[in-house]
Amino acid sequence: MLADTLFRALKASCQADWDAFVGHSFVRQLADGSLPKDCFRHYLTQDYIFLIHFSRAWALAVYKSEHLDDLRQAAKVVDGLLNHEMALHVSFCAEWGLSEAEMAATPEASGNHAYTRFVLDKGMSGDLLDLLVALSPCVMGYAEIGEALAEDPATVKDSNPYLPWIETYAGKDYQEVARAAAEQLERVAARRIGEDVMSSGRWPALAETFKVATRLEIGFWDMGLTP
Amino acid sequence: MLADTLFRALKASCQADWDAFVGHSFVRQLADGSLPKDCFRHYLTQDYIFLIHFSRAWALAVYKSEHLDDLRQAAKVVDGLLNHEMALHVSFCAEWGLSEAEMAATPEASGNHAYTRFVLDKGMSGDLLDLLVALSPCVMGYAEIGEALAEDPATVKDSNPYLPWIETYAGKDYQEVARAAAEQLERVAARRIGEDVMSSGRWPALAETFKVATRLEIGFWDMGLTP
Amino acid sequence: MLADTLFRALKASCQADWDAFVGHSFVRQLADGSLPKDCFRHYLTQDYIFLIHFSRAWALAVYKSEHLDDLRQAAKVVDGLLNHEMALHVSFCAEWGLSEAEMAATPEASGNHAYTRFVLDKGMSGDLLDLLVALSPCVMGYAEIGEALAEDPATVKDSNPYLPWIETYAGKDYQEVARAAAEQLERVAARRIGEDVMSSGRWPALAETFKVATRLEIGFWDMGLTP
Amino acid sequence: MLADTLFRALKASCQADWDAFVGHSFVRQLADGSLPKDCFRHYLTQDYIFLIHFSRAWALAVYKSEHLDDLRQAAKVVDGLLNHEMALHVSFCAEWGLSEAEMAATPEASGNHAYTRFVLDKGMSGDLLDLLVALSPCVMGYAEIGEALAEDPATVKDSNPYLPWIETYAGKDYQEVARAAAEQLERVAARRIGEDVMSSGRWPALAETFKVATRLEIGFWDMGLTP
Repeated sequence: MLADTLFRALKASCQADWDAFVGHSFVRQLADGSLPKDCFRHYLTQDYIFLIHFSRAWALAVYKSEHLDDLRQAAKVVDGLLNHEMALHVSFCAEWGLSEAEMAATPEASGNHAYTRFVLDKGMSGDLLDLLVALSPCVMGYAEIGEALAEDPATVKDSNPYLPWIETYAGKDYQEVARAAAEQLERVAARRIGEDVMSSGRWPALAETFKVATRLEIGFWDMGLTP
Repeated sequence: MLADTLFRALKASCQADWDAFVGHSFVRQLADGSLPKDCFRHYLTQDYIFLIHFSRAWALAVYKSEHLDDLRQAAKVVDGLLNHEMALHVSFCAEWGLSEAEMAATPEASGNHAYTRFVLDKGMSGDLLDLLVALSPCVMGYAEIGEALAEDPATVKDSNPYLPWIETYAGKDYQEVARAAAEQLERVAARRIGEDVMSSGRWPALAETFKVATRLEIGFWDMGLTP
Repeated sequence: MLADTLFRALKASCQADWDAFVGHSFVRQLADGSLPKDCFRHYLTQDYIFLIHFSRAWALAVYKSEHLDDLRQAAKVVDGLLNHEMALHVSFCAEWGLSEAEMAATPEASGNHAYTRFVLDKGMSGDLLDLLVALSPCVMGYAEIGEALAEDPATVKDSNPYLPWIETYAGKDYQEVARAAAEQLERVAARRIGEDVMSSGRWPALAETFKVATRLEIGFWDMGLTP
Repeated sequence: MLADTLFRALKASCQADWDAFVGHSFVRQLADGSLPKDCFRHYLTQDYIFLIHFSRAWALAVYKSEHLDDLRQAAKVVDGLLNHEMALHVSFCAEWGLSEAEMAATPEASGNHAYTRFVLDKGMSGDLLDLLVALSPCVMGYAEIGEALAEDPATVKDSNPYLPWIETYAGKDYQEVARAAAEQLERVAARRIGEDVMSSGRWPALAETFKVATRLEIGFWDMGLTP
């Protein structure tokens, strides 16, 4: 089985939503550099808050793991997010004139609440597989967006203030994070269901979780466009 | 101490948000009967989904209780919601042409996700007091709205299709539910903090939780106006 | 599929442990009336504490449910336990000279901690199916024990002080609770895995959970014998 | 306020239990080298399982944290446990003839279930402070035991096979972990209650949690003596 068979099937189960997410107007405006800077600042600020709850969700994955490999992989993500990615994010935001204190004091937007708390509740009420499925549109979607924009000849590379953002998610480090998450998703699905995930009784619920999370990602981009 | 000292202090800590919630345009249009019926149907459908997650939140309160009185009160609310209020809601919705199957098949709106999952996550990550504070704008707010509209001479009572809704929340049964919840909030605060809640180190966090929940209630009304 | 196919398979997967649980010396001494009364009082007191955490576990099942039938069934069990069974237990204990205040003040035994918190943690870290599997040795085991003792001609019925205990669990009400729980287990397994639970990738983990819970039930009886 | 004021007060609230824990026969036999090797191997094997659930508990602390400093400190502990301490433990156990596969395949003892799951459930049902209080007898107790044995002239240092164990917990690294945990306990108590923790309405419940956890630690040593 390819390492991303399950992820591909999840995307295919809500293709129109997925396309609306990865091809969102916010994303296209990052690609051509036309995104208003206030939108990007709004997005960065909400993303700062997002990262905190995203770290909490991966910590939940540690709590929910039954096998050492899963405990360790999730712990590595938590550590990476809190002690590495957040620092990068903060210094990146500083270049955009946003201080950490300012971001921490900004009220969380409703679309942020909706997405992050949906993931946390789905993960807490379900099992590790539900949690990983709810997390995957974000983890793997950003890798797909980053790679697609980096490879697209139409992407503006000269003087595009959003190029560093694109390069972060297209970069080797992030692509590796997403690849490891896709592998973990396959592994956990095999343990929690079996080999034939797509024809199991649980498939409709997993596809629904993925679709809802994808739509809430769309809501996150929408929010970015309305600072 | 009055039974609702803490609730009053929480409201006072975000009075402008509270006023925007209980005096929301959606509420005023219920009062004068001018609310478009599609808005009300949209609200009823989302409220059906809301009640499920609200029941889950009160079940969480059972799980989180350390004293039999709290276990029992929360269990009574869960039972009332799932085996009484939901049936009422379904038969009320039927009068508005909404079948239960239809409501169950409707996608949950983002504002619904935001509010319900915020409450569930705040309750799970915090303690019983955090959970009850996050629940209180809904539980007690609806009682306040119902009573205010019922007593307001400006409320249209003849041929107002929304009068049954107003009378439900102004009614003795619901007022008693809200009163018991306010008392429980006081009792749990005394156990989890002490007598002097408002000057404790925890007060700012409780007030913040209440404010965010109140704003997410406003978001719920906003959602009702945009079917 | 018979309503208890999955439960039978779980028992068969750890038959020796299951036999040691349902045929425990504590159980045999209940049957012939030879159990020292101090042992029974110790058991009753710990069972009082057990019922509280058992109620919390069923409330967790409400929180974890995704379908209204599961929400309602679990809520009914919570309500039954907290507002009916506990009262019965308290009045039964009173006949044995144990007051509720006394039982509430007794430290919880380690074997009680081990079993109840294992169930709660397995249920919280896993999904509704993990929770129901962890609960089933208790729910269905007591029904099996009650019925077996009631039907066994060797069970002493004259002047056996433990006959009311046997009759409670052999009685129609409790048998119906256990039957509904077995049916729910099948239903939830079909939703969370599919039709072929025993050959799924998850079966070993479910069987392990059942075995551990069964062994912790044995530990509970052991505890009863050492007041 | 001294960094360990709260920890001292918690110990003082159950001094006899605390003394029974830190002065347990298992500890004294480590100090004079007289502990049967089978007891130590049994303890090491259960401690391997313990570390997994202890890591899960610290991951829960990440999930439950509301402030970045708490998120980061807890994440650091999780990472230290899973990616550092467990490896040390495994290589240490290898010197005692225990393979990781063997330890992973050993059934968890009831006393291990009781302690770890009590901590996890108390932490999940309560807030971050409840979790940290439940963890503290272990985190800080081992530091106290290590330091006391290392400083006690009666401790056998020549040819004591348990000296490496003593030196680990008396060592600078572990003492620093415990010191940081004590500081975090103070900080979180100030945020979750206020300055005057010991006279707050919550104090009795915190003291009870600490006492139960201490007694379950005693049960863990007891278990070590009965392989």
